[in-house]
Amino acid sequence: MSSPTVPRLSQQLHFLVEIDKLKLILRRNPLCNDPRRENDAEHCWHLLAMATVLAEYAPAPVHLLRVMQMLLVHDLVEIDAGDTFIYDAQGLSTQAERELKAAERIFPLLPPDQAAEYRGLWDEFEAAQTPDAQFAHALDRLQPVLANAIHSGGAWKEHHVTAEAILQRVQKIHRGAPTLGAYAEELVRKLVTEGHLT
Amino acid sequence: MSSPTVPRLSQQLHFLVEIDKLKLILRRNPLCNDPRRENDAEHCWHLLAMATVLAEYAPAPVHLLRVMQMLLVHDLVEIDAGDTFIYDAQGLSTQAERELKAAERIFPLLPPDQAAEYRGLWDEFEAAQTPDAQFAHALDRLQPVLANAIHSGGAWKEHHVTAEAILQRVQKIHRGAPTLGAYAEELVRKLVTEGHLT
Repeated sequence: MSSPTVPRLSQQLHFLVEIDKLKLILRRNPLCNDPRRENDAEHCWHLLAMATVLAEYAPAPVHLLRVMQMLLVHDLVEIDAGDTFIYDAQGLSTQAERELKAAERIFPLLPPDQAAEYRGLWDEFEAAQTPDAQFAHALDRLQPVLANAIHSGGAWKEHHVTAEAILQRVQKIHRGAPTLGAYAEELVRKLVTEGHLT
Repeated sequence: MSSPTVPRLSQQLHFLVEIDKLKLILRRNPLCNDPRRENDAEHCWHLLAMATVLAEYAPAPVHLLRVMQMLLVHDLVEIDAGDTFIYDAQGLSTQAERELKAAERIFPLLPPDQAAEYRGLWDEFEAAQTPDAQFAHALDRLQPVLANAIHSGGAWKEHHVTAEAILQRVQKIHRGAPTLGAYAEELVRKLVTEGHLT
């Protein structure tokens, strides 16, 4: 593809073509309506839909545009670092380092003002201290719960993840969206009652 | 999946699980970085990224949150109606009717206030009269141009689409984002010069 004559636009399009690679990064969880594994780009689209439909469940008012932009870019580092399953202890031990290195390569493809803006949103998501970031995390945790519950345990069952480990991760949903956290917990407990999880 | 006890949340989650099916709808164009065909959900994620990165190229200031919400839902009707290739004359003749029927089924899965809000955004996108909708359309047209140009003609070559037909569709980019329209035209003309399109 040839570069446009406007250097700023050239950088922006280079970034947009580069991040297309997110469509090739597979996650562990299945789709809600199909057993195939979900990729990061379609996962992010789903989270953006959840953000706009479920914004009312954030305990403090959130800035929806910022939440959506945060969710849009929160997984870009996985283009280089790959997806780390949240129940993979070995992967988790090197995740932060791998993802930081990726952030340092990917965001600076943008013009400096936008690189700083999106890197800032990624940092905020990672720190998980603001209401916007906590709500974004709640959705990021809720979405695979929905998909795995539909498939009677899905990726959890396949990777022998215990209900206790899942319920520990579900805590992050409670913090960012209590009503959604309570519902996620109910779904996990139901899978235990039905014998799908131990 | 069991229903939450809050009826409003139950409707919202039912909608969110239903629209997961967008991940199963294949478009004609390839990914930018892989020859496999793109699905509608990852396409929409890419358009949302384009909206936030390229908003400065809209000729009139756009309301970015609305543009993003519009792009998020603009293809949902394809869950029922399927993707219609914009160079498929027969498909285009029945597209409006098929998509309207889908809109009448899908949006009302939401609670009435949200159903009206997102149906309104879809109607606005379809009418393509407001600056927000025209910018959204420009991105929706630009994205496959980028992907097909990277693959030296991609889906256009495969389906014997002429440069003349492509340039006619590129006009919609000019209207919603003139700088991006000029660049898209340059890409198409280059493919002709290089012998990839006639």
